[in-house]
Amino acid sequence: MSGQWQDLCAARKTKQHDSIPPEWLIQLPPDDQLNVMDVPSKCGLLTPRELEITETVDIDIILRKLSTAEWSSVEVTTAFLKRAIVAQQLTNCLTEIFVDRALTRAKETDNYLRDNGKVIGPLHGLPISLKDQFTMQGLETIMGYVSWIGRVAANDCVLVEILYNCGAVPFVRTNVPQTLMWGETFNHVFGRTTNPYNRYLTPGGSSGGEGALVAMKGSPLGVGTDIDGSLRIPSAFCGLYTLRPSYERLPYYGAVNALQGQESISSVLGPMANTLSGVKTFTKAIIDSDPWLKDPQVVRKDWSQQEYELVDHGGGKNLCFAIMWDNEVVRPHPPLHRAMEITKDALEAAGHKVIDWVPHRHMEIYKCAQTILNADGAHDYMLDCGASGEPLITSMSPEIDPHPTTLEETLIKKLVGPPKHHSAWELWQLHMEKRELRKSYLDHWQATISQTGTGRPVDAIISPAVAYTAVPHGLNSDSFYTTLGNAMDYSCTMFPVTYVDAELDKPHPPHEFHNHEDEAIYKLYTPELFPGTPVGLQLIGRTLEEEAVIGMTEIVDNALKKFRGELSG
Amino acid sequence: MSGQWQDLCAARKTKQHDSIPPEWLIQLPPDDQLNVMDVPSKCGLLTPRELEITETVDIDIILRKLSTAEWSSVEVTTAFLKRAIVAQQLTNCLTEIFVDRALTRAKETDNYLRDNGKVIGPLHGLPISLKDQFTMQGLETIMGYVSWIGRVAANDCVLVEILYNCGAVPFVRTNVPQTLMWGETFNHVFGRTTNPYNRYLTPGGSSGGEGALVAMKGSPLGVGTDIDGSLRIPSAFCGLYTLRPSYERLPYYGAVNALQGQESISSVLGPMANTLSGVKTFTKAIIDSDPWLKDPQVVRKDWSQQEYELVDHGGGKNLCFAIMWDNEVVRPHPPLHRAMEITKDALEAAGHKVIDWVPHRHMEIYKCAQTILNADGAHDYMLDCGASGEPLITSMSPEIDPHPTTLEETLIKKLVGPPKHHSAWELWQLHMEKRELRKSYLDHWQATISQTGTGRPVDAIISPAVAYTAVPHGLNSDSFYTTLGNAMDYSCTMFPVTYVDAELDKPHPPHEFHNHEDEAIYKLYTPELFPGTPVGLQLIGRTLEEEAVIGMTEIVDNALKKFRGELSG
Repeated sequence: MSGQWQDLCAARKTKQHDSIPPEWLIQLPPDDQLNVMDVPSKCGLLTPRELEITETVDIDIILRKLSTAEWSSVEVTTAFLKRAIVAQQLTNCLTEIFVDRALTRAKETDNYLRDNGKVIGPLHGLPISLKDQFTMQGLETIMGYVSWIGRVAANDCVLVEILYNCGAVPFVRTNVPQTLMWGETFNHVFGRTTNPYNRYLTPGGSSGGEGALVAMKGSPLGVGTDIDGSLRIPSAFCGLYTLRPSYERLPYYGAVNALQGQESISSVLGPMANTLSGVKTFTKAIIDSDPWLKDPQVVRKDWSQQEYELVDHGGGKNLCFAIMWDNEVVRPHPPLHRAMEITKDALEAAGHKVIDWVPHRHMEIYKCAQTILNADGAHDYMLDCGASGEPLITSMSPEIDPHPTTLEETLIKKLVGPPKHHSAWELWQLHMEKRELRKSYLDHWQATISQTGTGRPVDAIISPAVAYTAVPHGLNSDSFYTTLGNAMDYSCTMFPVTYVDAELDKPHPPHEFHNHEDEAIYKLYTPELFPGTPVGLQLIGRTLEEEAVIGMTEIVDNALKKFRGELSG
Repeated sequence: MSGQWQDLCAARKTKQHDSIPPEWLIQLPPDDQLNVMDVPSKCGLLTPRELEITETVDIDIILRKLSTAEWSSVEVTTAFLKRAIVAQQLTNCLTEIFVDRALTRAKETDNYLRDNGKVIGPLHGLPISLKDQFTMQGLETIMGYVSWIGRVAANDCVLVEILYNCGAVPFVRTNVPQTLMWGETFNHVFGRTTNPYNRYLTPGGSSGGEGALVAMKGSPLGVGTDIDGSLRIPSAFCGLYTLRPSYERLPYYGAVNALQGQESISSVLGPMANTLSGVKTFTKAIIDSDPWLKDPQVVRKDWSQQEYELVDHGGGKNLCFAIMWDNEVVRPHPPLHRAMEITKDALEAAGHKVIDWVPHRHMEIYKCAQTILNADGAHDYMLDCGASGEPLITSMSPEIDPHPTTLEETLIKKLVGPPKHHSAWELWQLHMEKRELRKSYLDHWQATISQTGTGRPVDAIISPAVAYTAVPHGLNSDSFYTTLGNAMDYSCTMFPVTYVDAELDKPHPPHEFHNHEDEAIYKLYTPELFPGTPVGLQLIGRTLEEEAVIGMTEIVDNALKKFRGELSG
């Protein structure tokens, strides 16, 4: 039997390679060229017009040009396909590549517009990339498991069905880590995805294929998922915008997942894009399609223009933000600290107030959430690995040249202990604990009304999503900055702020470490390792406050652009 | 140790009796007077004005008179307290009775109105009764468990906090069955609640204390809960209106419960009243108070006037209803069949269309839901009983003169099997099964668009809530009519239609029985047993469609009133 699962992987990888049109294979840069962000524009594969199309990062502009037939969907889809395949050759970000199918669909949307004089829907003709969980009829969904090779979907998942109804063109699917429960992207079938800003570093995960692809502008809009940070970690490491919506706001039905049926801390799906307009346009298009008529678990709540216009937040004037400088689990690296300072200055310059966020019972929330996510004692993972004989991956370190492990034992393992099968009754007790923690955090948030001067509690929290920027493969652990949102079910966005700068981001003197992991992460920082990689932050709002969170992120984003001199006025 | 828990019960019952002002004790009718509905008006305890107040069933009228100080809250509260205590003496419907506290609060609302010239909130001065789960600071919440005697709440639950903010006057709490998981109302501490229409019959449960109390007009508005029918069964058996809202629409935080932490099929709270206006006014008042700022699990969704005005249902003109004549688990008794015929005729007379509802995978849904509700293998119940030594109640039959058990083994027991501790992972598999069933039922519902002629799927389903009207104590089993709503998370109301009539409701000839239980329930029907008891139906709408479901129930209720000649025009 030895070697059998490896053979399956090798065959599948060959099949993937064969799905790339040979004329789109490029002359690869040397392996030691770490930053490959400029290869798409320099490799010669894309025409000037294709470069113009793919470098139009605002999807609202692309959609406008598609809706007026100034650009055809076939040419837009072709441009992004080519660029995606360049990204694939550089960062290994893709799983399924279906050129003919995507172009047939693109043609269909072009014909519809020609014949009917109107668009199919709000995403007419737009190529969209999908994380390797969103099943499409007739395609495999492997999701990083050898045993899932050959598992062909009988139906589109609800998201894909809605995307088609909106006129979109799904065109590639993107890589994930085995089990999905890593903040990096590596599995035995498709291998490792790297960060296009620095291939020595991880793009994050689990939506890491999307992170690398969208960062390289190989897709105008990607859809990922987030159960513990999987949208926000790659968005942070790759300099993207995203939205982690609340449980059940967007339709997950029919997509495959790890820990299927685990509904205590639900995985959610969200967009990843190079501009915030992409996040808004996608979210509004999906909600406007009445997804609750296709997915019974989706909250029946229309897109609220009023909430987007910040009716609950003073109309967006004189907001009060709170910055989480340190979540008291792991202190952020200097570039994150600088990003928060920039954001504070930009917001104050724009007339908003900024106060400090006081952490509240974070270690308790962390332990409760991780215990829930591990309540099956890894049974789910073992079943999916056992079916093929592939081993459970226990480190994201490269096999050939492993990094020394920073931590002998991660904080999560310390919190959760060895794998344990919980009973249903024990899970119910964890729900009680989680419910009490959510109530306590809500009351804590409400109590800030005494400090804001606005007559309202803090409008939103601004925080890192990870305590550091993209790290070498195998060194991403977890630092609770994302888990808070999943456990409390807060609507969160990510927005890019700056890039690591060795001059500006000198190491800070050691602080009194919160724990062993905090110390290890402190020691990981050397300004030489990270220059040029993106630094992003998250904006955290209330549960089911997606519209307002997008609206407030626009305010932050515009304040930052103005502060950096990118906007006049 | 023998006898100890019985002693605790006896002492607690004495304490309850002592909380009744002696001057409010009435001359009791003989035990064999089965219908006690007219005792409050005939016993002489209530003054004519108190009778006028308590017989004003439309709470909007009571609220208007309170807001103009035409009636003071003290006199309204006194009137309902007296009538509640009459109801208590006749049906044993109460647990906590707190006359002084209620009157002090009533006085406070009167003073506020006098001093400020405005009401505290939308429920200003209104006495409200609460099922014995809604904790109030300083009071015990016994919830039918001996071991909970003496368990004094440190805080108000969120609902009570909001009711106070709305100006309401909580004035009594009401009886429940041990474990809450019965459709009848009996426990070792407070005993058995009877049906005021016929004390030989059960008022239903688990919100059976509310059912008996509100039916006797001992409360203008009661709040109960529903995890498997516990609002709808007593509303059906006692002739009331109710709303079973979707999971997490109304704030449950801080209320105690059975199976605490079980969130797969969440218990929900809802109003019970003698008019639909009570249901609407309560629901709107709670939602308008932004309950998500006090209970982190409440869906952030404003009361939608548009949805109430049936924007998603053609503005309420020419609706298409579907009647579930038989859910293919248990066929309804003749009075229910007649109630459905009346409703059909009334709706058609009002210009609406009525088609038949086709049952869809009901036995699968039933089994999945009941397996989830029993996933802890009764561990929760055993813990709470074990703490005092009281036995787990295994039948609702009266101890002294037990009815012969109709069924040797209930359908639920057959479906679920012997008690079994499920693992968290097994519970996740049940979630997957439930999710697929919800999707399948949604698609089934959507597909009715081809039969309605309205361009929409069926607007709402009309169905029994139980296959029969109130039955003798110990004979209520379950017939899936309510469980469907809990498992699928549909918004459901109850509305009364008629009363059992021995002449009109002759037994039907035997049908081909769906199962052993269906046969037993068929045989239970004799027209002599039930005359004069209420017959109600439920209206079933979509998940989180509370406003529209209330709006459609108004249409049905008005059609029925017009059909019966109660409304002109």
